[in-house]
Amino acid sequence: MIKNRIRRLREKMAERKIDAYIIPSSDPHQSEYLADHYKTREYISGFTGSAGTVVVTMDKAGLWTDGRYFIQAEEQLKDTGIDLYRMGVENVPTIIEFIQRETPEHGKVALDGSSYPYDNYLQLLKKLGSRMILTDIDYIGEIWENRPEIPGDKVFLYEKEYTGQNTSEKLQILRSKMREAGADYHFIGSLEDICYLMNIRGHDISFNPVVISYALISMEVANLYIDMAKVPEEVLNYLRDNGVRIKDYDRIFEDLAEIPGKSVIYIDPKRTNVNIYHAINSNVRFIKGRNMTEMMKAIKNEVELEHLKNAFIKDGVALVKFFNWLETGAPTGTLTEYYVADRLHDFRREGEDFIEESFGTISAYGENAALPHYSPIKGRSATIKNRGFYLVDSGGHYLDGTTDITRTLAMGDLSEDEKYHYTLVLKAHIQLMLCDFPRGTKSSMLDSITRYPLWREHLDFNHGTGHGVGYLLSVHEGPQSISKVNNEVDMLPGMVTSNEPGIYIEGSHGIRIENIMVCIRKEENEFGDFLGFEPLSYIPIDTRPVMKELLSPEEIDWLNDYHKKVFEKLSPYLEGDEFDYLEKSTLEI
Amino acid sequence: MIKNRIRRLREKMAERKIDAYIIPSSDPHQSEYLADHYKTREYISGFTGSAGTVVVTMDKAGLWTDGRYFIQAEEQLKDTGIDLYRMGVENVPTIIEFIQRETPEHGKVALDGSSYPYDNYLQLLKKLGSRMILTDIDYIGEIWENRPEIPGDKVFLYEKEYTGQNTSEKLQILRSKMREAGADYHFIGSLEDICYLMNIRGHDISFNPVVISYALISMEVANLYIDMAKVPEEVLNYLRDNGVRIKDYDRIFEDLAEIPGKSVIYIDPKRTNVNIYHAINSNVRFIKGRNMTEMMKAIKNEVELEHLKNAFIKDGVALVKFFNWLETGAPTGTLTEYYVADRLHDFRREGEDFIEESFGTISAYGENAALPHYSPIKGRSATIKNRGFYLVDSGGHYLDGTTDITRTLAMGDLSEDEKYHYTLVLKAHIQLMLCDFPRGTKSSMLDSITRYPLWREHLDFNHGTGHGVGYLLSVHEGPQSISKVNNEVDMLPGMVTSNEPGIYIEGSHGIRIENIMVCIRKEENEFGDFLGFEPLSYIPIDTRPVMKELLSPEEIDWLNDYHKKVFEKLSPYLEGDEFDYLEKSTLEI
Repeated sequence: MIKNRIRRLREKMAERKIDAYIIPSSDPHQSEYLADHYKTREYISGFTGSAGTVVVTMDKAGLWTDGRYFIQAEEQLKDTGIDLYRMGVENVPTIIEFIQRETPEHGKVALDGSSYPYDNYLQLLKKLGSRMILTDIDYIGEIWENRPEIPGDKVFLYEKEYTGQNTSEKLQILRSKMREAGADYHFIGSLEDICYLMNIRGHDISFNPVVISYALISMEVANLYIDMAKVPEEVLNYLRDNGVRIKDYDRIFEDLAEIPGKSVIYIDPKRTNVNIYHAINSNVRFIKGRNMTEMMKAIKNEVELEHLKNAFIKDGVALVKFFNWLETGAPTGTLTEYYVADRLHDFRREGEDFIEESFGTISAYGENAALPHYSPIKGRSATIKNRGFYLVDSGGHYLDGTTDITRTLAMGDLSEDEKYHYTLVLKAHIQLMLCDFPRGTKSSMLDSITRYPLWREHLDFNHGTGHGVGYLLSVHEGPQSISKVNNEVDMLPGMVTSNEPGIYIEGSHGIRIENIMVCIRKEENEFGDFLGFEPLSYIPIDTRPVMKELLSPEEIDWLNDYHKKVFEKLSPYLEGDEFDYLEKSTLEI
Repeated sequence: MIKNRIRRLREKMAERKIDAYIIPSSDPHQSEYLADHYKTREYISGFTGSAGTVVVTMDKAGLWTDGRYFIQAEEQLKDTGIDLYRMGVENVPTIIEFIQRETPEHGKVALDGSSYPYDNYLQLLKKLGSRMILTDIDYIGEIWENRPEIPGDKVFLYEKEYTGQNTSEKLQILRSKMREAGADYHFIGSLEDICYLMNIRGHDISFNPVVISYALISMEVANLYIDMAKVPEEVLNYLRDNGVRIKDYDRIFEDLAEIPGKSVIYIDPKRTNVNIYHAINSNVRFIKGRNMTEMMKAIKNEVELEHLKNAFIKDGVALVKFFNWLETGAPTGTLTEYYVADRLHDFRREGEDFIEESFGTISAYGENAALPHYSPIKGRSATIKNRGFYLVDSGGHYLDGTTDITRTLAMGDLSEDEKYHYTLVLKAHIQLMLCDFPRGTKSSMLDSITRYPLWREHLDFNHGTGHGVGYLLSVHEGPQSISKVNNEVDMLPGMVTSNEPGIYIEGSHGIRIENIMVCIRKEENEFGDFLGFEPLSYIPIDTRPVMKELLSPEEIDWLNDYHKKVFEKLSPYLEGDEFDYLEKSTLEI
């Protein structure tokens, strides 16, 4: 089937003498998750991982993906004729090196500019400048029979009761930022930013309550480009009252083309596709930077934070019910990772105003938990036994906001190593929770602080410590990031970020403890304006694996104090054995 | 006197209708310290601080300097007609804003390109593009009567016994780096890099045993441009045998001009002056980056490290003798900060192969220590009393290498605050000493780890945590830096770096504890190649102010273990009351 698709693609390529065709994993908005309609890379290769790019030449085809997907890709590419190129592994050529090697010096390279990020295109141009790059070729669209439609679900209004700010107020702030930067226009392509600004949400992408659309803001006009059939009367009226004009999704290209020369337009090259860029008059001046809405939406207001706290209580209640159910059922030897993840979904669904899960649940027992991005597959997932660790990383979208939580539970007896690693991960988690820092501290600087207790024991984990979390939007959002990669963004009050250190021992066990925290002001004095973190998540952290002698008095205090609050917050919503479970699991150590 | 100089400068400016003349604090090599010959900014303004730029227009004159020098500059600028512009203070115009405001739109701005860093010039060009910028105007040279000569002291050979590598070996490595980068030539303007590469040292700049020179390296030829009269026969022979040709200092311009078009030259824009840049043919291609020698010299080899350890023992012996002497003399009320700094110099001089101090000693009692860059002035410095803290930050150049050390001593009774702050600074210091980290950790990521114990108490200090230290070269060297400023340079084995957290309470007291450490390999395992630090400095850390209850068991262990080693290393070189002092000050707590 895949071979047949590649053959048809090559026929198309041959017609126009194209030497290499690039199929990225991307939609016109550079979304993290894609609607089925945009899964072109999956269509052409059969590979279902979230990250990967396919390049097809007349006699070769390759998939480039990262370490998370090596095993999966190897399996899924079997007998497709597509070679796997393992990114980050020594001596594996990059896509650009491959194209340079496999195509003639002035060969034609083609791609579909409507789904290709402008930023990546610039890199191609820089390296492949001498080759001809065509950006208007949508061959997958041409060969894809029964391609899923672009979703047409109705949009809903996200009321001021939840957002705290109307669109007109947000536009006012955005325009003052544009004025400061000297920008006449701001194009916005990323769906989370548009939904944030317009106070709308939808169901166009699984796990992401966003709406496929573009926005173009000038000092006078704010246009939302969207399939009008999706927009109910109520939303139309709201937007009109807030100074927003609705236009058809594809009208963006016309409107961009009409921007008068010498105007200044602000765009985010990482969140703009090539066709958008090409639609703009060549004598319009560009300012490139992060979408100005990114920082606005990262700093949650009081109303948003209040709702988020509710969402986390609902989440806490669901998880306590789930843990109680799980621990009762596990000794029967009948529960699989996949099945229990489904049950967790059920418990969440009981929460008021639950909308959907915020990402695919990581439900991993024993050695499977050593794969930080493991996802159980129906019918093939492991059975949970009454020893070792079970790790669950999951989250929900509620009308009250988005949650994300990881807990690692002792299902029975643990090895000394398991206890030791669990205690160190907990120390790292608490280290960040206790860390106050002066305003001006870059978010990445908090990463090394968290890892310190692990580094001292010559342990580490191979993912970031913390990501921003959207508000009924993507569970991963910037601009802050607590990771080893230098990040120039200050951690600021109102930012909502995860704290999720871990330890992963291949073939044995995996541990991660994740809370979501909000950055708050602590004290301003002559040394600085000190900020710190406060948890939003209140869910028991398993104390059974803790080696108490490894914790400092402050760490023990933090843990006991945290559990006291967990009990206070969740106990009103639990009864019977679920209440008992909460009580037992929040006892002092 | 200053007024007269400014008047004469303005006469010169009027002749050529120059609207603004810029006098930076710089020499042709962008050295941190300047030979007297290059102190043009001091000559024109009377301001003696190490950092500052003067701009003179026909009716205004200004000095721009940073917070360290506000008080000193205010005093020194009195009655000069030069206004002080406090950098970093709100609403104070930058130099560029001042020029934009004070000169006509197409006015002429001039400077002496021979001492102006190319990097700063690029910024000027970017912002003042519309103005005419002349870069060949040396007016200070023209009006400066009795200008000190460029130093003519003899160069000496730094033997392989000390450097561990001959110049020919270093050239081989450098050329392989050039080849990798695709560079045909590497121009080197920074004196430390040249001295490192050529294995020579000299006496051209106080506190910096460097030699005024340029170097130009190609695949075939290595040229050293220097006042030939300074180079003894022995050095000439050594360099010739190592493939280096000696040329006259000024010949660099001719040689640069002769580089054939389409060649590729590698330069460091921060360490290259404007005239050098302009001397190069316009169709030569540039690669810009840090001098390639910078990383080579930052990673000390085994021979260098062995010698450095010796140097620190000599330094430790000198400091113990000094502390013993100081504590005996202080109660007499006769010792001033300035006088004791002189005595410390005497104690250092007793060390074998001592060359000179590596920077001006910071000798500060009581509230003076709250100024991190305080320097006592003869006849005006404070008297040391038998209470509170005395802080001394000093270092030496020995043939065995360069030292730098800060200790804060209890001179008698201390307040609770003093003890509390001292203990926290010690905790921060130990935090970094105990920190292991995987290879790939950026040097700046270690900064937040060090500050963590202070941040938790809502305290902080307003300088970097650690700087690289040269090997019989500048006491401050890159490329690594442990500071709040993001630094992309990995901390690597062999790097020698300071660890110097502090707390400064204005009007009351100042504390800093500084050791020099070498980065070493600890353990390679599945989680990474773990590195850590080992002290090079072995000098007692005053334990009298320590609030033991604030230290963790690991911190107490570190301190006791450190003092055990201090005793082992220094005791063979001390006798009588000096031995007793060492014994007492290295007791376990």
